[in-house]
Amino acid sequence: MTQIKNDLFLRACKKEKIERTPIWVMRQAGRYLPEYRAVREKADFLTMCKTPELAAEVTLQPIDLIGVDAAIIFSDILVIPEAMGMTLEMHEGRGPVFPSPIRTENDANSLKNIDPTKDLKYVLDAVSLTKKELNGRVPLIGFSGSPWTLLTYMVEGGGSKNFSNVKKMIFNNPKLAHSILEKLSSAISVYLSAKIEAGANAVQIFDTWGGILSQDDYQEFSLQYVEKIIDNIKRVNEPVIYFPKGVHSNLEKVASCGADVLGLDWTMDLGKVRALVGDKVALQGNMDPTVLYGSEEVIKDRALKTMKSYGNGSGHIFNLGHGILPDVAPANLKTLVNFVKENSTQFHK
Amino acid sequence: MTQIKNDLFLRACKKEKIERTPIWVMRQAGRYLPEYRAVREKADFLTMCKTPELAAEVTLQPIDLIGVDAAIIFSDILVIPEAMGMTLEMHEGRGPVFPSPIRTENDANSLKNIDPTKDLKYVLDAVSLTKKELNGRVPLIGFSGSPWTLLTYMVEGGGSKNFSNVKKMIFNNPKLAHSILEKLSSAISVYLSAKIEAGANAVQIFDTWGGILSQDDYQEFSLQYVEKIIDNIKRVNEPVIYFPKGVHSNLEKVASCGADVLGLDWTMDLGKVRALVGDKVALQGNMDPTVLYGSEEVIKDRALKTMKSYGNGSGHIFNLGHGILPDVAPANLKTLVNFVKENSTQFHK
Repeated sequence: MTQIKNDLFLRACKKEKIERTPIWVMRQAGRYLPEYRAVREKADFLTMCKTPELAAEVTLQPIDLIGVDAAIIFSDILVIPEAMGMTLEMHEGRGPVFPSPIRTENDANSLKNIDPTKDLKYVLDAVSLTKKELNGRVPLIGFSGSPWTLLTYMVEGGGSKNFSNVKKMIFNNPKLAHSILEKLSSAISVYLSAKIEAGANAVQIFDTWGGILSQDDYQEFSLQYVEKIIDNIKRVNEPVIYFPKGVHSNLEKVASCGADVLGLDWTMDLGKVRALVGDKVALQGNMDPTVLYGSEEVIKDRALKTMKSYGNGSGHIFNLGHGILPDVAPANLKTLVNFVKENSTQFHK
Repeated sequence: MTQIKNDLFLRACKKEKIERTPIWVMRQAGRYLPEYRAVREKADFLTMCKTPELAAEVTLQPIDLIGVDAAIIFSDILVIPEAMGMTLEMHEGRGPVFPSPIRTENDANSLKNIDPTKDLKYVLDAVSLTKKELNGRVPLIGFSGSPWTLLTYMVEGGGSKNFSNVKKMIFNNPKLAHSILEKLSSAISVYLSAKIEAGANAVQIFDTWGGILSQDDYQEFSLQYVEKIIDNIKRVNEPVIYFPKGVHSNLEKVASCGADVLGLDWTMDLGKVRALVGDKVALQGNMDPTVLYGSEEVIKDRALKTMKSYGNGSGHIFNLGHGILPDVAPANLKTLVNFVKENSTQFHK
């Protein structure tokens, strides 16, 4: 196994003492980079996901071009439902579409259990290849959607405004919802375990839509399955990051889900959450992604505020509070990354 | 002045002792009602807003058909920017569009100060007419968007996913944003005062997009203007409701904004917020609107949970955590309203 040269990210996940705050950003391998768009012109989004060479190429771009402290494998959370048998289409500008959403017991029965080494071999190959090409420069993160977040897409048939269909399911047929969530939890557990086996040094669970649920429903339909997955992932020392976007309540409980790191969106206060959850988890986040539309001065000012908000000591992984937006200038991200690298040492004395 | 026969809503706003919990729901005069759709077939949305007879007709529908404890005047938050000079279009299925959004100082300078008695006379006429036709059965609520929420539409040119343009403005030209927010605050203050003068018994400020801001930005670009407006509204005893949807932090501070009532969305816990803010404000909300997709049993179960969550004593106005959705069966809302009326007495002994 190649020794990782810059392991700041991994040490921050474990709240070990480090020299400076590590930084990576969600969607760092993405459309804001001209080099990404050049690859994307040659292949559609799903082809990129399914071609390990292309996935590895764009995964490495922000390491080479921006200088972030971790790589995250280029992929999509919806590859799992697709592997379970659903037809997945990516529509330019409209986002992902499942033309045959899951609404009934019959639909749900058609979802098959997956063997990631066969059904998602292309992701694992992309992980192995990226790992080789990274050559130990920085750690590699694998990821999945949470069961609840995947369920919303599978039931709605794509993105949604009011999530009417999945809400109808949890209120009118909670048993059906739970049976699919169970199936998804198993799939996600073996998938994330296989990613670690293939070389991922950490995994992140994206719960993008946990925040649309009331507190009791979030516990019942999302958090309990995340806990189960974290308990089931086969890992040695690889940290798990849980990012429950928009979930603001019961954070002490959320922080006890078994994850090493809690991801926070930009509406949270890092310092207050740190005080609340204590030493249980490291925190990742949480600058408003739209700050990157600002001037160099604004970006630096907000970045410093973010670090000050967390305060002194280890356990903070700098990130945005959500994915970087496609129309951000790469130079602005570079400004942020360099600033955090140069100015975070004061918090680690 | 006509005496109001059912003044439960007004007394709950003031936390006075009452016999049962009052209930009304956001967007109760809306598309879920076949009687509303019948009116809507004869006139487009803005024509309905601008024709006092039609606005009054649909405002009264849920009073007659559903039996809610308050009426809310049928209108739209975007009539203010329109009155300030912006062209407003309502696109079926796509929502409101401002074809010429406000992005520059020049754009902002074109916004005129409004005199509601002239520029929004049709709203005031609708209020007076509705008031007359209500004949004191229940109180009438007037409303406005918050300055920040109006600004998002004015700068984005309509609804938005990432709010990129308005965020660019607050980060790159905060002075410009503040100057428009000032202008909006004055307009909203005189508008809500005029609505009260015309007969509104209470007013609600909708801050639908306060929750997309970080905590400091929310304070700077939204809350401080809401405080100013509440301070400026000319009223005798008419309560002010502030509904900062998606704002989860610093609720003690939010509760001190001067409003009599704080509206909460369904991701909040009524009981916890009550414990946090104490006697400062009454609370309005907050059942997940999608619960109305559920069976009678589910609706009753969740309604009881909502009331239990608030607990005993006055100061709770039952409402949904957001507007009722267009595809909800009116019978389901009626089930909710009747259940709350019949089963809330136990909390007021």
